[in-house]
Amino acid sequence: MSSVLKFPDDLVAQFEPYSPLPGPHDFPSVTLTFACSLDSALSLAPGVQTHLSGPATKSMTHYLRTLHSAILVGVSTAVADDPGLNSRLEGAKHQPIPIILDPKARWDITESSRVVQTARDGKGRAPWILINSKHWDDEAVVNRRGMLQKYGGGYIGIPADESGKFSWRTLLSKLKQELAIDSVMVEGGGNVINSLLEDGESRQFVHNVIVTIAPTWLGKGGVVVSPERKPDASGAYKPPRLSKVKWIPMDEDVVLCGKLSN
Amino acid sequence: MSSVLKFPDDLVAQFEPYSPLPGPHDFPSVTLTFACSLDSALSLAPGVQTHLSGPATKSMTHYLRTLHSAILVGVSTAVADDPGLNSRLEGAKHQPIPIILDPKARWDITESSRVVQTARDGKGRAPWILINSKHWDDEAVVNRRGMLQKYGGGYIGIPADESGKFSWRTLLSKLKQELAIDSVMVEGGGNVINSLLEDGESRQFVHNVIVTIAPTWLGKGGVVVSPERKPDASGAYKPPRLSKVKWIPMDEDVVLCGKLSN
Repeated sequence: MSSVLKFPDDLVAQFEPYSPLPGPHDFPSVTLTFACSLDSALSLAPGVQTHLSGPATKSMTHYLRTLHSAILVGVSTAVADDPGLNSRLEGAKHQPIPIILDPKARWDITESSRVVQTARDGKGRAPWILINSKHWDDEAVVNRRGMLQKYGGGYIGIPADESGKFSWRTLLSKLKQELAIDSVMVEGGGNVINSLLEDGESRQFVHNVIVTIAPTWLGKGGVVVSPERKPDASGAYKPPRLSKVKWIPMDEDVVLCGKLSN
Repeated sequence: MSSVLKFPDDLVAQFEPYSPLPGPHDFPSVTLTFACSLDSALSLAPGVQTHLSGPATKSMTHYLRTLHSAILVGVSTAVADDPGLNSRLEGAKHQPIPIILDPKARWDITESSRVVQTARDGKGRAPWILINSKHWDDEAVVNRRGMLQKYGGGYIGIPADESGKFSWRTLLSKLKQELAIDSVMVEGGGNVINSLLEDGESRQFVHNVIVTIAPTWLGKGGVVVSPERKPDASGAYKPPRLSKVKWIPMDEDVVLCGKLSN
């Protein structure tokens, strides 16, 4: 799990057109990236880590992480995978800040969570956890905040809507203001990805899309990337479509790079 | 709609490893082929024809049709699309026999159905419709059979199970016995494709898989390719996975070629 990864120069060149926008700008430049099956599943079921893609795309992910100020995942991914959220690329010049969306402050992050261990070992940055402001003074949050501050991480409170969700506009501007984040790689899970794709308002923040597809069908019942069909102001639904598309085969997988054109 | 299509020689060479098995053999060699979105949708909703992929993959489909004895679709596709089910490839040396799975004999095929017109115009073969044997003497079937026989087509009766489905084993051996079909391209729709992928029994008949993926998400509510998870004899579920994989970018799409390895 802790092996060092390499990403060859010829592949680095292929991804150059899909680098984050150089900052600074008002909102962080978002790269949406994930790996899925042919039937768009991230995993066999919620909370089940599923091995999908090969070693080359794993190295790619760790390379891409070095290009971004931050990487962002939803709380379900954090709880299910206990991820390190760092880059294990050989000679990585930069480590991204881990951001976890956790509106209900339900992640029981501790000293032994992998992301904290990774920061303590100097192999990554300490995480920042975005919660609904109303949980700011919860006892658990106060305690965890004390622990995270030792490593340079912490909590950020944001107002959420009635359903407990953040708006991407508020969330991204907060990351810029509080942490000076100019680029963020959104890695999952399903709810986070779908909410970015579901309407024109959130799609406009996505600068690059990089999707790995593995040649398998996980079958009905998986956690899938497939956005809700939210109508635009005219009442019509426009499916998100990529432009400036490049397909890069790696091992048995393919990596799709593109820009969201609507 | 009736334009002639070309498929360049360099692409022909790419598909050579995914040609149907040369016959004769006991069961037709099956090529599973379809076009879908990133979220595995064939169309926005049942009965809604959805433009997904570009002109190059359309030419590919018409090229592949010339390599097969037959092409097969489900009745929902026939009713929704009124397809020609021929090859419009320039200089096509061979036209496949159209096969329609219609267990309940619900397709009201007439002289003005496009597949019949195409046969009458000498641009394709007359269709054969597979129905549950118990509908053999239905008045509608008798009348339509008379019409189809004029063009060299007809009906084939097969016993269906209690839920009204054919078994692939029975169906394919019938196509071999009755029509000397040695290779068949299964093109859709969702139910037909999913039933081929859902268990080890049906997967064993699939010799080649050729899937076109367009860089768009149609969103929740589409007709999707994602098989039911049927456990094998040991009670485990093995997701179908492709081997000998090749990814071929065409226009903005990618074409995935492979073999079903389980």
